[in-house]
This record gives sequence, C-alpha cells and structure tokens, in this order.
Amino acid sequence: MADKKKRRRTEPSFEDDDETQLPFKNRLKPDSVILQSLRDLTNSSSSSSTSKAVTLADLSLSSTCREVSDLTLSSVQSNIESLILKIAHSIISGNGFAFDVPSRSAANQLYVPELDRIVLKDKSSLRHYANISTVRKTTITTRILQLIYQLCMKSIHVTKRDLFYTDVKLFQDQTQSDSVLDDVSCMLGCTRSSLNVIAAEKGVVVGRLIFSDNGDMIDCTKMGMGGKAIPPNIDRVGDMQSDALFILLVEKDAAYIRLAEDRFYNRFPCIIVTAKGQPDVATRLFLRKMKMELKLPVLALVDSDPYGLKILSVYGCGSKNMSYDSANLTTPDIKWLGIRPSDLDKYKIPEQCRLPMTEQDIKTGKDLLEEDFVKKNPGWVEELTLMVKTKQKAEIQALSTFGFQYLSEVYLPLKLQQRDWL
Amino acid sequence: MADKKKRRRTEPSFEDDDETQLPFKNRLKPDSVILQSLRDLTNSSSSSSTSKAVTLADLSLSSTCREVSDLTLSSVQSNIESLILKIAHSIISGNGFAFDVPSRSAANQLYVPELDRIVLKDKSSLRHYANISTVRKTTITTRILQLIYQLCMKSIHVTKRDLFYTDVKLFQDQTQSDSVLDDVSCMLGCTRSSLNVIAAEKGVVVGRLIFSDNGDMIDCTKMGMGGKAIPPNIDRVGDMQSDALFILLVEKDAAYIRLAEDRFYNRFPCIIVTAKGQPDVATRLFLRKMKMELKLPVLALVDSDPYGLKILSVYGCGSKNMSYDSANLTTPDIKWLGIRPSDLDKYKIPEQCRLPMTEQDIKTGKDLLEEDFVKKNPGWVEELTLMVKTKQKAEIQALSTFGFQYLSEVYLPLKLQQRDWL
Repeated sequence: MADKKKRRRTEPSFEDDDETQLPFKNRLKPDSVILQSLRDLTNSSSSSSTSKAVTLADLSLSSTCREVSDLTLSSVQSNIESLILKIAHSIISGNGFAFDVPSRSAANQLYVPELDRIVLKDKSSLRHYANISTVRKTTITTRILQLIYQLCMKSIHVTKRDLFYTDVKLFQDQTQSDSVLDDVSCMLGCTRSSLNVIAAEKGVVVGRLIFSDNGDMIDCTKMGMGGKAIPPNIDRVGDMQSDALFILLVEKDAAYIRLAEDRFYNRFPCIIVTAKGQPDVATRLFLRKMKMELKLPVLALVDSDPYGLKILSVYGCGSKNMSYDSANLTTPDIKWLGIRPSDLDKYKIPEQCRLPMTEQDIKTGKDLLEEDFVKKNPGWVEELTLMVKTKQKAEIQALSTFGFQYLSEVYLPLKLQQRDWL
Repeated sequence: MADKKKRRRTEPSFEDDDETQLPFKNRLKPDSVILQSLRDLTNSSSSSSTSKAVTLADLSLSSTCREVSDLTLSSVQSNIESLILKIAHSIISGNGFAFDVPSRSAANQLYVPELDRIVLKDKSSLRHYANISTVRKTTITTRILQLIYQLCMKSIHVTKRDLFYTDVKLFQDQTQSDSVLDDVSCMLGCTRSSLNVIAAEKGVVVGRLIFSDNGDMIDCTKMGMGGKAIPPNIDRVGDMQSDALFILLVEKDAAYIRLAEDRFYNRFPCIIVTAKGQPDVATRLFLRKMKMELKLPVLALVDSDPYGLKILSVYGCGSKNMSYDSANLTTPDIKWLGIRPSDLDKYKIPEQCRLPMTEQDIKTGKDLLEEDFVKKNPGWVEELTLMVKTKQKAEIQALSTFGFQYLSEVYLPLKLQQRDWL
C-alpha cells in the first residue's frame, strides 16, 4: 500500500497523489506571475475606493430616502433626550403622545442601482399612545428607549435576548422587542450597533490582518488554525493594518479550515474570513470595515447554488429586513470568484459530485434572476442562467474529488492567475 | 430622564440602577473571601485529579469493553498496514476477505458508574467482501482506510465532508462515509481526531489561558470580546498555561458575551469557554485537555431546562453515538453551578421570565431521571425532580430581569461565594 505505482487502477483515478491527472495543474504559472496580477487588482480596487462614493444626496434621494449612521453613545443619548423632550412639548401643548415611526415594510424599500444596495424610503406613521390599536407598541417603544438610554450611560453591550428579558411582562415575546428595536434605530437615525445591542458572533478571520479588539492587539497570522473569532461589537474594533492583496470571503467552514491549515495567506497575501453559512451582522460589519479601511478587493468563494449567490448578495447589497442600515452593513463591489456554474464543466467536476437542483432551488434561482442586483451584473446573469438551465449545483467541497488540497493548490491559484472573477 | 430619582415608579422595579432591590446583592462578601473559597476548590480538584484515574483495566473490564486512544500519525499508518497485511494473509490462506468490525449499536453500550461515562462493549461482526449484503460496506471501508492512509502520509486535516467528496460515486451519501469512518476509528483503536478527520469548530475561549495553536502562542486574556476560536484539530494544541482558579463552561453565546465584556476572568481568575449551544467535538476535546493539563475544576452555567442538563451530560459523560471514544471526549467531574431549578425561587426570578415546559420538555426531563449519570448524583436528581414537578424552565438570560450585569456582578459571585454547585 505504501507503493503508489502498485495501486494504480485501470480506471481514470482522481487520487491526491496522482498529479499528472489533476485538471489544469499544468497551466499554473509561477506564484510571482500570479502575485503581480493580484497587485494590479489591489491597485485598481484602492483607486476606485478612494474616488468619492456616491451618496443618496448625490442622487437627490436624501429627501425621499432614509439612512442611519453610526453615532457615538453620547449622540444616541442626546437624540433620545431630544425625542422625549419633543414628545413632552407635544403633550403639554395638547397634541398628545405619539412617536413618528419610519415604515420598514417591503413597500417602503427601494433598490438603488447607483448605490448597488437596497435603501429605505421615507414613509412613516404615527404611533399614538391614546389609541387602543397602538398603545402597546407605544409603551414598548418608550421602554426600549429607556433601556437603550441605560446602556448608553453604562457603556455596556447586550444581546437582543437580554433586552427582551428585562421586561418579559411587557414585551411578551422576543419578536416584539426585536421589531421595536429596529424601529428605534430608524427613529434615532443610528445603526443598531450604535445602540449597543449586538448579535451573537459566529464568524472567524485568519491571515494578513492586525487589528485591535476591545484594546487588545490581534495578529491574525498568529491565530493557528482556529483563527480569531470576529468580535460581536464592531465599535470596539480598530487600528486595522494589513499587507494583504485581497480579502477572500469563504461561505463555509470546511473550505476555511483547508485554507487556514495550508496557510494559503502566506503564499498569496490575503485575509480569509467566513461567517460559517448565513452572514451574521458582526461578520458583515467586520468585512465592510476591512474593505473600507484597507481598500482591498473582496473575492468570494461560495457554493455553486442559488444560496451561494444569495449569501454573496447579502454581503454585497444587504438583506431586506435591515434595509434602513444597508449603508453600514454592505460591502460594495464583491467579486464572484467561484464556485461558479461554468466551473463545473471547465474544471471537469465529475457528474457524481454534482447534485440535481430541487424544485425549490430552481425557483430560488429564477427569483434571483429577477433581482436588480443580479441583473446589473451581466456575468452573474449568465452564470445563474446556466445554473437554472443545467439544473445542477455543487458545493465548494466537490473539488475534494481531485484531492483534499486541490482547492488551495490548484483551483484558487489558477482562478487568481486567470483573474477569473465576475 | 437623566435624573434617576424622578423616574422611580410606585411599582417595585427591577432596574439596572436600582441596586437596593437587587436580590441578594447585600449578601455578597468582599472578593478576597470568595477568591479564598475558590482556591480551596482548585486545590481539592487538582489533588483529586492527580490521584490515579480509574481505568477499564482496574475494573476488570478491559477484556469486555473497547476503548480507543490518541495515536500518532505513524501509529495509525502502521495499524492500517498491519490490518491490510492480515487481510492479505487471510485471502492467500483461502479464508477470504473480511473486516472484523466492532458493533457501535446501543445494545453494545454500557454506562460504567465508576468511570462515570458510557463505554462500548466488545461485540463485533465480520464484514465479508464475498457477501451480497456486505460487499458495498466492505468496499467503502477499504476506500476509507486508503484515504486515511493518504492523510497520514500528507499530514493534513480534512473534514468529513471533504472525505465524502473524494468518492461520491462509491459513498452515495455522506451518512455512509461518516458511519464507516467511525467503524474505522474503532477497528484501528484510535480516536477520530487521530485519523486527521476533524469537525467544524464553533466554540470560543477567553480568559486566563495561554496555549499554542499550530505553533502560534495565544494569550486568551488578550482576545478582546470576541475571544479565540477553538481550533478544530486538538493535536496541534499544546503548551497550556494558566493562573485560573476554575473553568467556567457556558452553554450560550449571550452569557459568554456578557462575561467577556465585563472581563469577569480578571475579577475571578478563570477560563471562560462556550460551544454556543450543542457541544461540538472540538470544544469537548479542548475542555478535556484544559481540565487534564491544568487540573482545574469545571463549573457549568446552563439554562434551567432538560436540554441544559443534557448538554452538561454530553460534556461530562459523552454522547451515545461516540461511546467508543468516551475516554477522550469527556471531562470528568463537571459541577452544575446554575441556572438550577431551585435558583428560580431562590433568586426570585419573576413569573413572567419563567417559561412553561412543553410536553416534550417534560418527557425529556423524565427520561433524564432514568439515566445512570443523573441518578448517581443525588443533588442533580433533586433539581431535575423539582423541574419536572414545577413544569417551569428558564434561560440564563432570565437574570437580565434584574439588570444586564446581574449575572456577572451578583449571581455568579454569590454562587462562588456560597460554593453553590452540585
């Protein structure tokens, strides 16, 4: 068994050690050539990032669309005080007690192609205390404002679950306090993280990045295989430094582990980040901060299925239920590196490693084809059309059919060499 | 709103800043007193750990029970070679091709009270190649052995998913390759991590611990709020050092975040670890390694519901489907610190923060009462009986009803002061 020659079978084999048969391995150029092409990419990315970003104001949309921004704790505190004062005046002057709450419904959302993300329009409605249908929500809103005010004074962070438990009698179930929390974000014009309410983190980062987390300096090249857990509170993250040429955004844990163990970031200087599936808010904020501060291109490695593209779009354009905060949560200009539907034939992924798409998959794929953020990228439309036509999907791990390290040693280097991203 | 006095309501309030009404806050002694009681605990724990651990051999069970151990890559490799040689001999001598595969079924499992964990008995069955009902499984077993042999030679780690994709045509679906992988562990007498097949990690650790991950030294007091992601491959973890007095095992992310932000480990020197829900293999291995190398007591903070206790038991006694590896995956002598059913009344958790148990919850609770590892701890039986009787459960976060920091500032310190663990 130790002698490889003797094991060779008559059928074509895709063994790890059978290098001559690895598709495209012979097309790989020396790393120095690939690195030069990456430097070009980085330069073009940092110059495009430095050109003034388009804002709602540039598009004359600032009066009809609503956006929130990161505010300091003291600004949040004074915004709450002003809001309460305004309401006190209204009560004293005989106009009663009501909050003016922005609508977050789908009808009040808009995809803006120039910004390449979903934004919230300016519709709002009055939430009256003296009305049987809104009295509960008005009370909850007041209570949430009071709790946020306490968080500002103490300068601590809590989760949405903590917030719920401070007054279960009033909130009844967590969806109610969560939903009003988003209302309060919109009303105060600040991001949810400015309110010091954080989501549980699940993302990890490894590679050529140094940053501070709550005052501790973290060197992500020295985080072994496990990597650094992405902090839940982005406001305590700072001092980002990097000599990376790009950020590699990975959908799944297994591919992340492969790249971390192979220290892929040392061969091709990069920062590797994953949310282990669905993007959480902490990872989205962290990715955006890296992109903005380091001016690096972002290349995405996702499964070749409609959910892979959907995940890419959440990082890129935002999710619908947090459209009011899309400016802070989204990372512009993410490139789709792989696994793309056209890769399946190009890289000769064997039939048995491809999976048939379910009816639901195909429907999701077709729905995505109708989305503006897909339509604006002709390359994506072409790939997605191919996926829906062939009715085949494949996971990143399907590349293991050519050996466990095919991903890090052939597929990714070749993709980078050929600048094969969309 | 900034003036606290003016906000006071007539109803009793459990506000963050309303310290006089926080249950038991006035019973807290100075930290120095609590620390002394923790030092006593640590000393007793390290002396009990150094006393020789009971083994299967001590109980005269080694001939009737089967256990695996951590093996080096070269031992795994030579075990595979011996196994294949033995089979070759069998074929040449006319006895055919078969693997002797240990049974991993429930009927072949045993809870050993002296060891306080589930072990596998010695039943096994022959898996013949020349038999229509076993030919597929025999082929899969051979293929998995071959793949593991490759991993040993390359000294890399892969996930179970990677393994599946190396031969989809043969394995058909991942449950088949996963199940044979466990068979192979048993056959070779080594842990699954010795095979270099790892599970995705999701645990994090923070606090008074320094260790090496794949050669990088990690100081977990300098990991900010996010903490260090627990590495997926325990064999590359080493050099553990700590001045902690105990390990605090936390079920959920929200409580972990609270304790990390408050740097609880600086007030009471400890290591805080969480798997964010269901314990994964990487976190279980990491916890055990800490316990064994640092000889620290482990205190568990879980929800007061049957699943909290179940999670505690998986860390402590193992899960049934990996009973063959219970010696390496389990952490002996975990103490149940909280939230315990008796705490709900003791700490005056308001009715509205308790949740009624569902029929399924109650059934799970009753089933747990029949389990040997619960029965052997009379304190646990008493608590669980109370839970099933009152039909009430509560999450750790229910403590937020007394203020966001009640957990870290009153509840945990008081528990430690009173040595209130079971």
